Amino acid sequence: MKRGIQAIAFDAYGTLFDVHSVIAPCEEKFPGRGGELSRLWRAKQLEYTWLRSLSGQYQDFWMVTESALVFSCRSLSLACPPHIREELMGSYLRLETFPDVRTALAKLSHFKLSILSNGSPRMLSASVKSAGLSGVFTDVISADEVKIYKTSPRVYGLVSQHLAIPNNAVAFASSNFWDIAGAKSFGFWTCWVNRGKFPQEELSVMPDVTVPTLDGLVNALEEPAASSD
Amino acid sequence: MKRGIQAIAFDAYGTLFDVHSVIAPCEEKFPGRGGELSRLWRAKQLEYTWLRSLSGQYQDFWMVTESALVFSCRSLSLACPPHIREELMGSYLRLETFPDVRTALAKLSHFKLSILSNGSPRMLSASVKSAGLSGVFTDVISADEVKIYKTSPRVYGLVSQHLAIPNNAVAFASSNFWDIAGAKSFGFWTCWVNRGKFPQEELSVMPDVTVPTLDGLVNALEEPAASSD
Repeated sequence: MKRGIQAIAFDAYGTLFDVHSVIAPCEEKFPGRGGELSRLWRAKQLEYTWLRSLSGQYQDFWMVTESALVFSCRSLSLACPPHIREELMGSYLRLETFPDVRTALAKLSHFKLSILSNGSPRMLSASVKSAGLSGVFTDVISADEVKIYKTSPRVYGLVSQHLAIPNNAVAFASSNFWDIAGAKSFGFWTCWVNRGKFPQEELSVMPDVTVPTLDGLVNALEEPAASSD
Repeated sequence: MKRGIQAIAFDAYGTLFDVHSVIAPCEEKFPGRGGELSRLWRAKQLEYTWLRSLSGQYQDFWMVTESALVFSCRSLSLACPPHIREELMGSYLRLETFPDVRTALAKLSHFKLSILSNGSPRMLSASVKSAGLSGVFTDVISADEVKIYKTSPRVYGLVSQHLAIPNNAVAFASSNFWDIAGAKSFGFWTCWVNRGKFPQEELSVMPDVTVPTLDGLVNALEEPAASSD
């Protein structure tokens, strides 16, 4: 393992919470189109965070997520009146937790555990509660505090500010390669939780470790330190 | 028309030059997969510009375009050895011009005409030359000058610096809605050249005019000023 790690910061969406658990409600509203809608919704949600951050037009993650849903429905020619939109947005407040999350967090409880997410405070608090993870995290940190999204260094900088530890004492875990790239460039030790078996992106940085689930992170942090560490 | 427009700044890729003219060479190398490769290549190229800009890891557009190609081939399980990569990248230096471009630019020649693009100076100069458009533009402005990409306001700010005119005297034309959103937030009068008949994005801004080709821009700028202008 990497020596000197005191805290672990977890990305939320895709890492702890399964954003594609919205497929079922999407499928219920739009039979046969749920998967497609969920994929486009997620892609647009991310795209809008990057574009708004870059042009200085921040809007909180709830609004960005809703805008992404509205665009995605329009793009796929799915009629989405307000009551359906509201229901689908509601499913974002009770996303399913990946099956490895609870056990892994318990095994890692000797570290300071935190969440660092684009999600708005209200969304994160609802998701943590709905997942039965209240009390597990020292801090649940939202990009909303600095009104810009990942991969801005200002977002990653929140971890050391909140936990009062240096950046090189932080392990950052995310299932999103682009998030890992941002965190690694910022200076964190990084663990790519490659749940989807995706190919690595070409962003000139590589994660310190790549694991299929959070069990891999537990192992990586328990291994005896290699001499090169 | 909008009163007081003195100059028009055109986006390059997708607006003047057809990025999907790489479909033919892609199809030649990877029969049956050209369209899919071209679409993913373009999507990743844009994604990488946003991510690198936001994390402060600028790399020029040639390198970003090559990285996007490498990832896209990997993601689609297409073997892309260096000589094929080089050939496909080469096609980015001689992209086809959309059929309406030359005539529209001639009709707009009483304005100061410029290009404002993410492309590196070498790429833009090659494309302009290959399209037979040398001498048409007062300025060919690259985001490379400020080492960040659209939609950063620093990029849009280059137009008034280069042309020595105020922002509200600039008409900005792009086929990319996200680019229009950035330019409109910055303060330009904007014309969305919606070549692909795409639905509008949900970014809290609307273009001043939406046209199917550059002929529509010519008409919009020739119309008598409405009283509300």
